[in-house]
Formats: sequence, C-alpha cells, structure tokens
Amino acid sequence: MEFSSKLLEKAVGEVSQLPGIGKRTALRLVLHLLRQPKEQTQGLTTALSAMRNDLKFCKSCHNLSDVDICEICSSVLRDKEIICVVEDIRDVMAIENTASHKGIYHVLGGKISPIDGVGPHDLNIVTLVEKVKAGHVKELIFALSSTMEGDTTNFYIFKQIQGLEVKTSTIARGISVGDELEYADEITLGRSILNRIPFEASLKQ
Amino acid sequence: MEFSSKLLEKAVGEVSQLPGIGKRTALRLVLHLLRQPKEQTQGLTTALSAMRNDLKFCKSCHNLSDVDICEICSSVLRDKEIICVVEDIRDVMAIENTASHKGIYHVLGGKISPIDGVGPHDLNIVTLVEKVKAGHVKELIFALSSTMEGDTTNFYIFKQIQGLEVKTSTIARGISVGDELEYADEITLGRSILNRIPFEASLKQ
Ligand SMILES: [Zn+2]
Ligand SMILES: [Zn+2]
Repeated sequence: MEFSSKLLEKAVGEVSQLPGIGKRTALRLVLHLLRQPKEQTQGLTTALSAMRNDLKFCKSCHNLSDVDICEICSSVLRDKEIICVVEDIRDVMAIENTASHKGIYHVLGGKISPIDGVGPHDLNIVTLVEKVKAGHVKELIFALSSTMEGDTTNFYIFKQIQGLEVKTSTIARGISVGDELEYADEITLGRSILNRIPFEASLKQ
Repeated sequence: MEFSSKLLEKAVGEVSQLPGIGKRTALRLVLHLLRQPKEQTQGLTTALSAMRNDLKFCKSCHNLSDVDICEICSSVLRDKEIICVVEDIRDVMAIENTASHKGIYHVLGGKISPIDGVGPHDLNIVTLVEKVKAGHVKELIFALSSTMEGDTTNFYIFKQIQGLEVKTSTIARGISVGDELEYADEITLGRSILNRIPFEASLKQ
C-alpha cells in the first residue's frame, strides 16, 4: 500500500496488528475515525489506555476486576464454598449471563495444552488447590470446554485434590463435544450448570 | 454481556462502535491487548490520536497529507496538467500502486448520490472547476467507480467545465461494471489508466 501520510500509515500499521484485522480492514476503520468527530477517537484511545494500565486481576479468583478483590468474590450474596472452575474470563461472563451459578469462580487462564506449550504451572492451579486445602470449599464445578485439553486439565486438578474433603462435579454435557463454552446458548449453558454431575461419574461415561 | 470490570466494559463499548466490529469481536480484541505488553496498546492509542489530531487534507487535491500540500502535488516529477479525479483517498492509493499515472489527483470525497443525500456541494467539485478555469489543466481523467453514482458525478463535472479548454477522459472499463475501484487488481487498474478514452466517447458507448 502506498500511503500519502506517515500518520495514516502508522495508524493503519498499529490497527492491523490486532488479530484478524488485515491492512485493508485497518484502513477502513482508520478512515472511519477520520470522518467522525475527534471526540470518538479520543474516547476510544482513553478507554483502551485506562483499560490496559489500570485493569487488575482479582487476587482471589483471577477474574478481571477494577479492584483487588472482584465484585463476585466480595459479594455477600454468593456462596464462597462452591467454586466454578473456568478457562477464561469470557466463560465467567457467559455463565453470569445464565444466572444459574450462585457460587464464585476460579479463572485458570487457559487449559493444559502440551502442543501450545501450556503446562499446569502456566495456569492458576496452585492457588485453586490451596483454597481447597484450606478447607473452605465444599464443591468444585469444572466448567471447562469439553475438548481433550479441557478434560486433561480437569483430570490434572482432580488428581491434585484427591483425598481432600471436596465434592467435584462437571457441568452436564448439553454442550456438544468439542464446542467452545463461550459460544453456547444461554439456556443450554444454564441447564448444564444445574444438571452438573459428580466428576468421577463423568470419567466412566 | 456481564462485565466484571467497568474499565473492560468501557473499552469493549468504544471498540464495538467501529463499523463491522460487534461486541464479541471487540471483547476478543481488547483481551488480546491485555495479553500483550502495555507498549502495544500505547503504540496503538498514540498512533490513532496523532492521526486524528494532526492529519490534514492537502489544500490542493484534498488527499490526506501530513503537510498543507501533499507529496504528490508538490513533487517536481509529477505533471500538474493531468489531473486524475477520484472519489476517495483509497483510490489514490490504489492507482499509485499501479505506477501508471504520472499526473496529480483530485479527491472528490465521494460521489453524487441523491439516495444517500450527497449532492454536488458536499463534494470537492468547486475547487476542481476553479483549477480548470484557471487554465492550468490539460486533461481530466475521470477514475470513478463505474456505478450509476460514478457516472452521474462524471457527467455533472463534465457539464461544469464544458466549453473550457480541457481534455476529458475516463479510465478504460477493464473493470467490471458495478465494481468498486479499490478492489480491482493492479494490472487491470493500471491498464485502464493507460487505455483511457475521451469522456465524450464514453457517453456514446
Ligand atoms: Zn474474584
Ligand atoms: Zn495534494
């Protein structure tokens, strides 16, 4: 692409570094901003900077939060003894939308995947096991995607807490095998939480 | 969507105001930035702010430019007497890529489209007619999309300069009727510039 402006070229270059955004799309987005009032670009850049600089991870559940301990973890309405284990903050959002889980969460930050070079120590597993060992957890609900990596991660955690006094369950497989959790419809996802089964039973299926 | 963070919600909200970017895509882009070093977000926001605040339109051809008169208009290598008339700065970029036009440009900023409420006075037509009236133009090459709006715009300008001493031509229709100029391949587009025909001849076709 031949640019008549270095400012334009730089802006397009930066935008096209975002995943799934090619040069042509980046140019279209940048030209759109140019046609809108300056305030729109300012709103966008201010929000992105604030988000990137000030966003925290909840010190307890590793969910994204504006404060040290997130709203869910600090809510008196939530049952702290039931922890729903998820891969990603998007899964927290998806499950919260269903309003079917009254406990709290634990965000692993991914799943064990040797191919992608993700081992147990790259995930927030130690803090989860510590919580269980501290004895304040009645039930862990595994709500990972039903993929091989998800199953591996479930099983790894299950082995770590074996012998400890805690119930483990997995969400009911209303969701097709291989599907990403975040794309499931609300009703299916909500039902799969309500119909969760003991994790050990799921191993035999 | 249930957000655990106002900062995240605001960032997603701003990004999803961009055309063609839904909430889900916006969330994916924002979470990507969160996983990258802070410098990437800073690079992006700085480039967008600088672009939006400092980018100018060339006072002569209305192309985007970092300076008052753009590089093309101020280049001693370009023939100022041959002006290629285009809708959009993307068309300048597309034609520059072909390296087939040795003259300069005039960017209209759109095309006449009564349905979209775009009339001749919403476009940079007056400054073009003035250039021709000043007598410094030997040839106008119409390089608008071959759509009804493009043809209407060509014809409107043609009527405005009728009787003045200037040759008018349109790029050869190697490009399929109805196609947007910017998506044409370089060879077709380059050839259509070289094989341009007098505008009046194109009316009879
Ligand atoms: Zn939390
Ligand atoms: Zn110029």
